[in-house]
Order: sequence, then C-alpha cells, then structure tokens
Amino acid sequence: MSRESRLFGAVEAGGTKFVCAIGDESGTLQSETRFPTTEPRATLLKVREFLQDSGAARLSAIGLACFGPVVLDRRSANYGFIGKTPKAGWSHIDMVGALARDFSCPVGFDTDVTGAALAEQRWGAGRGIQNLVYLTVGTGIGGGVLVEGVPVHGLMHPEIGHIHPRRNALDGDFAGVCPFHGDCLEGLASGPAILARTGSELQQLHASHAQWELQADYLGQLCAQLVLTVSPQRIIMGGGVMQQERLFPLLRARMLHWLGGYIERSEIVSDIDRYVVPAALGARAGVLGALRLAIGAAAP
Amino acid sequence: MSRESRLFGAVEAGGTKFVCAIGDESGTLQSETRFPTTEPRATLLKVREFLQDSGAARLSAIGLACFGPVVLDRRSANYGFIGKTPKAGWSHIDMVGALARDFSCPVGFDTDVTGAALAEQRWGAGRGIQNLVYLTVGTGIGGGVLVEGVPVHGLMHPEIGHIHPRRNALDGDFAGVCPFHGDCLEGLASGPAILARTGSELQQLHASHAQWELQADYLGQLCAQLVLTVSPQRIIMGGGVMQQERLFPLLRARMLHWLGGYIERSEIVSDIDRYVVPAALGARAGVLGALRLAIGAAAP
Repeated sequence: MSRESRLFGAVEAGGTKFVCAIGDESGTLQSETRFPTTEPRATLLKVREFLQDSGAARLSAIGLACFGPVVLDRRSANYGFIGKTPKAGWSHIDMVGALARDFSCPVGFDTDVTGAALAEQRWGAGRGIQNLVYLTVGTGIGGGVLVEGVPVHGLMHPEIGHIHPRRNALDGDFAGVCPFHGDCLEGLASGPAILARTGSELQQLHASHAQWELQADYLGQLCAQLVLTVSPQRIIMGGGVMQQERLFPLLRARMLHWLGGYIERSEIVSDIDRYVVPAALGARAGVLGALRLAIGAAAP
Repeated sequence: MSRESRLFGAVEAGGTKFVCAIGDESGTLQSETRFPTTEPRATLLKVREFLQDSGAARLSAIGLACFGPVVLDRRSANYGFIGKTPKAGWSHIDMVGALARDFSCPVGFDTDVTGAALAEQRWGAGRGIQNLVYLTVGTGIGGGVLVEGVPVHGLMHPEIGHIHPRRNALDGDFAGVCPFHGDCLEGLASGPAILARTGSELQQLHASHAQWELQADYLGQLCAQLVLTVSPQRIIMGGGVMQQERLFPLLRARMLHWLGGYIERSEIVSDIDRYVVPAALGARAGVLGALRLAIGAAAP
C-alpha cells in the first residue's frame, strides 16, 4: 500500500463527547461519528464498533487523544490509563488497553491538547514551528507543549490551566470555580468562571464590560508566563472562549505589559499578531489530533 | 586518542567573574583560573590566553556557558552573541565568534543555567533524569530546562526568574527590585530583593522572621508553576540563597499548597524530598556546565 493511501483510526475522547473518524496522512477525514460520553464500558464499545465497521484490518494505526490526566510513561504499568478525574466512573480506566486488545495495529496515545498541538503544527496555525504551545480556553483551560517537535510529558504532562495568575484588582473577591484551587487560572478565566462571575457568556457581555479586561489580563499573563518558561515560537489559542476574536488584541497587549519589555525578540516586539494566534482547526482540532497521534504511532 | 583521555576547554562567562578550566569526560578539572568580568575585549583576551597556555591544540572542543540573554538559534546571524543586557558594554558581544576565530575545535554554547542543568544531570543531582529544571536563586533568579535530555531554547531560552508570582499578603507594599518588572519573582525573592526588603541576607535573619515564609512561598509557587508547565521529573535548586538548606522543607510545603492536591504523582505526593533537591555541584556548576557543553559539541 502506498504511503499516501494509508488509513488511520482517530478517536477523540472528550469529557462530554467522543468523536471517531477514519483519516489519511493529508488530514482528510473520510467518515466520522460522535456520541456523548456515558459510562466507560458502553462508550468504549461504541468506539470499537465504529472502528470495526470501518474495516479495522485496513488501519495502519489508531490514535487516541484523551481528556486528562492520563499516564503517558511507557515504563509505567498504568501506561494508557486515565488518572484520577472528577469525571464520574472514568478514573483509572485503561484506554489504550481497551483498543489494543481488539486491534492489532499500533495505538498512539496522548492528551487531547497535545494531540491538538500536533495537529495544528501539521495542518493548522503552527506549520513549520517546532516549539509551540496550543492552549484551549473553554469548559476548562489546558495546553499542549511541543519542544523541538516533541510533546512535553516529563513527570506527567503539562496542566497549564492550574497556574495561579496574579489577581486583577478589578476582580474583587470572586473566589473562582476550580474545585482544586478556587482561583487558579481555570478558576478565574474558563467559560464556567465567566458565567459564575457575570451570569453570562463572554460574547453576551458588552465590549465595555470589565470581564473583557479581566479575561485579557489573565490570558495575557498566561502567555507571558509561557514565554518565560517554555519559550515557544508561537502560541496557538483555541476553545470556546477564544472564538471571541476581539480577545486576541486585548490579551496580546496584556502579555506585553507583563513581559515589561524584557524579551526583545522581534517575533514578540514587532510581530505579536503572528506570535499569539487563533487556532486554525477549530472544533476539528480534537479528532485531527487523534489522527496525528495515529500517524505518529504507525510504522514509518 | 582514547575517548577517556580527551580534553576540553570550559569557560563560565558570568556577570561578575569568568572561570576557565581544562577538563575531561569524567568531570575532572585539571587546571582552573578565574578573573573578574571587566570590559569584553580585555576579558575575552584573558580567556584566549588561558586556553592557548593550556595547549589549545590538545582540546577536542570548548564550551562556553554564558550569562544571558544570549542568541542560541543557529540560523540567526547573531548566533553566539549576548543580547541586550544591563551589564555595561556586554550587549551584542559575539562570544562564540571570539573563540571560534582563534581555535579550530568546535565551540559549545548555551546559557549558564542550561549548562548547569546539563552538568547536574551528568555529574550531580539529576543523574538519570531526562526531564529536569535547574534553578539558581542568588543575585538573580534563572533556570535551565531539559525536556527528554534536550535544553529548551525555542524562541530564545527560558527566563524563569521573571514570572510574576502571586503576592504574599505578608509582603505589604514592597515594590520589588527588578529593573524591568519591579515585583516579578526575581524582584521579590532574589538575594538583592531580600536585602532591599530586610536590610540583611537571609542567613542573618532569625528563623521566625517573616522573610523565610515569604521566600518559601515565592519559591514554592515557582516550583508549582514549573510542575504545571514543563512537568519536570526533578527540580534542582542552587545559587547563594539556596545554600540555606532549611529553605527546602519550607518551600516544598508551599509548593504542595499551591498544587492543591491536583498532581497525584507519587514523586510529588510521597517523595517530594527527592523531587525538589539542592544542587550537588555548588559553585562548580557553572564551569562544569561549560565542560558539559564542550563535551556535547565535540565529535562523538
């Protein structure tokens, strides 16, 4: 079979829905299905059925882009498992094992956000960039980090949404909504945080509403911290909240404020519109991430 | 010449002093000299003289571990240069060029903190660890990050000391000492910050002095942010301030506070004394870092 015609299974395992598809190396998806995330056994059965109905024997590999936390250390007995998660019933579920048992091809596995980072790098807003961060700001806040093209795992994987930004003076005594930390970044700037603070979604709030300023400040701080810590060549931002494109100029300005003129690279000083950019793959980042993981897992 | 007997030149270029040495692959230094950092031409002349007197023709490579910011992108016309630095006269100095012109062997080049991270990994507190952060807390605060054994460069290199920790309520209205940011981490928790806030060095302050709590809180926040962002398997802390070993249990407790039980890895939950550790190479981390860069630059 020629390289171009190889087919892959792609499974985006999200906390609210699963998306399964068959795709090829060009990022084209040939068939696709989606269903709500219920309990693990029934949900994973649907994944198996989809892959079998799609002709599993044709697949060069399967990719699984999963909500976290997950175990990515291949030397661990729990490699391929979900960790302890507030998502009822899903803690310590063997995701890779559930597929590897029934399919003989390789299974690529990583977090949903790392998959999205790899997909944006291959087909989206990060083409040609070896060091990038993909951020999603929606129900939660998370990020995938590539260093020299390699996903950062280390001890576990990044959990960028749970850093503690400095509180904005306009934010008063809002306690935040993160069940672990209260007012970490996710607790202050995720979709549910915006709703808890204002009673609205961001796009429903007038441009003069303080929430826009808060949102830009917290996300600008996040970007500045990333520049100082992992030094990406580009930051790509997706997720429901980032659909509001007018956030981008606001948060870029706050990022520059927090950097305080310290990083003098032209990419930031003169070209920030190309440094912090909207995700290009939109709602397809998840399943394309899974496809990208499958391609990475296949024999070359 | 056998691999074991190869010799390397090591140059630690610091903001206050230079240390030059000849060493071998085992990390043994055979000769060493140090001199204050004056103006670039005279200082680099001393480096050349030392290397020539040591028998430059014998050297398999030279390593240069340099105070930052530096240009590490090999595709840049300014590769090997110092960037804009407050250190008078040293902005835009071609460090690698100054050595490459006079010596025919390869020149390895990186930041002083990345060199130290590599040296701690090879000979110190990070043996066998592929993902680690080396932090120095002294005149400034900086860090080198290894991901799968590879130094993080990306856009430039990490500048971890300039993140903005959340202000501690005990810290009142101390403005911080960073010339760029005021109250970034370096502005709040470096040696000069401690001196500005208290009039003393940390070791002169009684254990009940609030500075210990502040210091532990800010450094604990730093470690927590690193766990959430680059997910290291170990954090190694050196520099003058970290000579105070009683800081370690205090800052580990604050790191756990900021993580809020979110990261459930046993390395952090049950074994934090081996997760955040003192540097093992002490004042030799700089020159051994340079040696490590030389070894990395030599032909295999």
